[in-house]
Amino acid sequence: MDAFILSEWLQQHFAPSDDSPAYHRLYRLICRAILEGHLGAGARLPSTRDLAADLGIARNTVLQVYDQLAEEGYVHAGVGRGTYVEDIRQDLLDPVDGGGDAPAAGYAAPAHDLSQRGRRLVSSLGFSNRQAGAFMPGIPDVREFPLKTWSRIQNRQWRAGPWDLMRYAPAGGYGPLRQAISDYLGSARSVRSTAQQVVMTTGIHQGIDVAARLLCDPGDTVWVEEPAYWGVRNLLTSSGLRLVPIRVDDEGIWPGEAERARPPRLIVVAPSHQYPLGMVMSLARRHMLLDYARQVSCWILEDDYDSEFRYDTRPLSSLQGMDEAGRVLYAGSFSKTLCPGLRVGFLVVPRALAGAFADSVAELYREGNMMTHAVLADFIREGHLSSHIRRVRRRYAERRACLIDEIRRHFGDALDVVGGEAGLHLILALPDGVDDTLVVRDALRQGVVTRALSTYYTERENARSGLLLGYAGATPEEIRPAFDTLARVIGAYL
Amino acid sequence: MDAFILSEWLQQHFAPSDDSPAYHRLYRLICRAILEGHLGAGARLPSTRDLAADLGIARNTVLQVYDQLAEEGYVHAGVGRGTYVEDIRQDLLDPVDGGGDAPAAGYAAPAHDLSQRGRRLVSSLGFSNRQAGAFMPGIPDVREFPLKTWSRIQNRQWRAGPWDLMRYAPAGGYGPLRQAISDYLGSARSVRSTAQQVVMTTGIHQGIDVAARLLCDPGDTVWVEEPAYWGVRNLLTSSGLRLVPIRVDDEGIWPGEAERARPPRLIVVAPSHQYPLGMVMSLARRHMLLDYARQVSCWILEDDYDSEFRYDTRPLSSLQGMDEAGRVLYAGSFSKTLCPGLRVGFLVVPRALAGAFADSVAELYREGNMMTHAVLADFIREGHLSSHIRRVRRRYAERRACLIDEIRRHFGDALDVVGGEAGLHLILALPDGVDDTLVVRDALRQGVVTRALSTYYTERENARSGLLLGYAGATPEEIRPAFDTLARVIGAYL
Repeated sequence: MDAFILSEWLQQHFAPSDDSPAYHRLYRLICRAILEGHLGAGARLPSTRDLAADLGIARNTVLQVYDQLAEEGYVHAGVGRGTYVEDIRQDLLDPVDGGGDAPAAGYAAPAHDLSQRGRRLVSSLGFSNRQAGAFMPGIPDVREFPLKTWSRIQNRQWRAGPWDLMRYAPAGGYGPLRQAISDYLGSARSVRSTAQQVVMTTGIHQGIDVAARLLCDPGDTVWVEEPAYWGVRNLLTSSGLRLVPIRVDDEGIWPGEAERARPPRLIVVAPSHQYPLGMVMSLARRHMLLDYARQVSCWILEDDYDSEFRYDTRPLSSLQGMDEAGRVLYAGSFSKTLCPGLRVGFLVVPRALAGAFADSVAELYREGNMMTHAVLADFIREGHLSSHIRRVRRRYAERRACLIDEIRRHFGDALDVVGGEAGLHLILALPDGVDDTLVVRDALRQGVVTRALSTYYTERENARSGLLLGYAGATPEEIRPAFDTLARVIGAYL
Repeated sequence: MDAFILSEWLQQHFAPSDDSPAYHRLYRLICRAILEGHLGAGARLPSTRDLAADLGIARNTVLQVYDQLAEEGYVHAGVGRGTYVEDIRQDLLDPVDGGGDAPAAGYAAPAHDLSQRGRRLVSSLGFSNRQAGAFMPGIPDVREFPLKTWSRIQNRQWRAGPWDLMRYAPAGGYGPLRQAISDYLGSARSVRSTAQQVVMTTGIHQGIDVAARLLCDPGDTVWVEEPAYWGVRNLLTSSGLRLVPIRVDDEGIWPGEAERARPPRLIVVAPSHQYPLGMVMSLARRHMLLDYARQVSCWILEDDYDSEFRYDTRPLSSLQGMDEAGRVLYAGSFSKTLCPGLRVGFLVVPRALAGAFADSVAELYREGNMMTHAVLADFIREGHLSSHIRRVRRRYAERRACLIDEIRRHFGDALDVVGGEAGLHLILALPDGVDDTLVVRDALRQGVVTRALSTYYTERENARSGLLLGYAGATPEEIRPAFDTLARVIGAYL
């Protein structure tokens, strides 16, 4: 985002309805933009003179805000050349940065260089380069990956001269893996499919992307849950689709009369474990949704991203398994059950769409990766996946219990824990009025990574305040001191 | 494609201007649709009564065409239920088909089920499930893959406990690989870059896709070479872009006055080795293109897909290396130099775009695959890539010489060989008037895979007739008998 775009963006979000002083509003707005990644490292802030004029406030106010931001390490002043965003994202794995010769990554691109959808995309990034430690949500503990078993199968296959596996994948992907997944999902998730209906992808993102292209045209409407996974929003928008956020209550997605009167082309839901709130969609709501989709002939994409991890209750079966009308596409991956780096996911599509989806994935993405697929197929067929899931589920249950203990020890019942019955994270609700992005900022300064619940909402004014705390990636020994730190930070806001 | 859509499509393409009898025109049209993959296995043809009415021809004519198609193995009659396309694509790797319980893959989806762009996509597929043997173009000989060296590096890295490599990749990808690629391209292809400008992708397709999204909005114009790689066309179209095919002459892309008067947003070219014709873009044409892009502020995507394989001449340096204005994005992959299954490619983007591209790839595709990236980084740094390329280049040069010898032995100078100085395939030109798709069909029946040059053109009426013959994937012992067979097939058309 360059200074010109940024200035426009700040004008748009500099809410005059807010009662707090201009200084505080501007400070919070820029902090938020940096913490949420809208402003990458190296991005240049508008000059104090320009920004003051654009926002209609005193230049001195802007100067004070910039000074404060610099003091707190958000930005630094370039010699006589303006104010630049610091790299606060700690790109652990990327030794490329700071090479010295390049000015900065950031969004140095002039506004006219990117397309409109490109600008929208880079100004609303959701991903993080931080992929480990307490309390990064959405990632499993890769240290639990069954490296020995995997290597054994891999070596066995490589010895055989895996030439056929080194080519582009055929339409739909590697056949034996499609069969293994179809069998596994039938017993584990009550998904009803033949192997032909299983189309290999590289993960949930690619599944959403191909569904958006094959089922929706630019301008079509898609319902997404409010709040929802950031990836869904940006993928669909960059494919030209119009998103309608639909509120969720304790039973799941709950479209109102007015919304139901304008049927979408596609509905994206996570019925087994709403992201990020974590509730399970009720049986009544599932029937409502399936009936509605049949009546209006729209599609449902079921994101079943981490349904294997349930601690207190048996998992409900998939929405796909209840679908009599062939309107549900079921998306899953091995990113949570094994590890994200494998890049193996799948779609289970209605029979009528199987050929079109298999061929289109091959055509659009030109996939391969069958060496991994072949190892995974054996891994599943030999029963290693099920036993691995059982093993890590016990491990994650301990960590979850440890985190809840810590929460209770520090806060008693003063703060609610939401959606902790399943998945790899829980939500620690904060009282209304506490700005969760500031808590996230302060925690990050102390080395503790969390994510702000409010940032998962499309309409921020209705957002609940809270913290997403991922516990799967950290041991109890890592969780306890990290939560001690976090508790101190939270305490300052209560 | 269901029967209704198919009928519409046939009406559209059933050219009344043609002088040949209706029987021949319909027969060729359906053959072509099947051979080019527009009609997948299991697709149902319209009833003879409906199709005759739709095309305004005698029902008996349609009946004769269907009989002929059945006799030749293109279609089969279902019991009392119509006529279905046979599986002629020989999905070698896909044991899923023919499972018995499912009716067929094909495009069983009713027309209203897919979006418009989805229907367009599945009715113009370019990929093939056939990925080996004489004379499939575009694939290297994976049997040459340096499995031992690769395994050694891989085992070394896995023993070290590669936990960090098993997570999602950071923005831009695995840092050491970006550095290794930047260094390698600097010396091998005169590409000028820092590691920050190298953004890892899964291949050329993903590079084109992210460029389309970040640089172009739906409705924007893109110039593509005429003829061009099929993947470019379908990717860009499904991203909402409008393609303008620009003719190529012996020096490369050659936009006319009228075309230059309406600047595109993006130009996609393969200057080192035009696909599929194989000529190298002249220096004058390169300067013209770079000047034009600077003047009108459009982008150039340089597809440098197999520039490493040149036999008679030294490779020209990349277009990127000549670009002073920062308008060129350079796309490459290891699909041809190592093997397609790895799914490792990259974009080298202008410095101003580096942050936006790195972040957007992470956001849109949620990449990983760093276990492979780390092996490849060491593989390149230790010099194995360069020596592997030198080795297979010699191997492919022998195969190319063998194929040209065979061509000369059978046809003398009667048929031209085009574009054989580089790459993994050459083009055997056929005389004007010979329908190359029929030659392809007949060769396929004899077990020899080729591709028809005319199908790479957007505007078929200006297409040249010829066969793409890939020689890299077959040994001389495989090439000779296959070409004997092919020569007999071609002979029947001369």
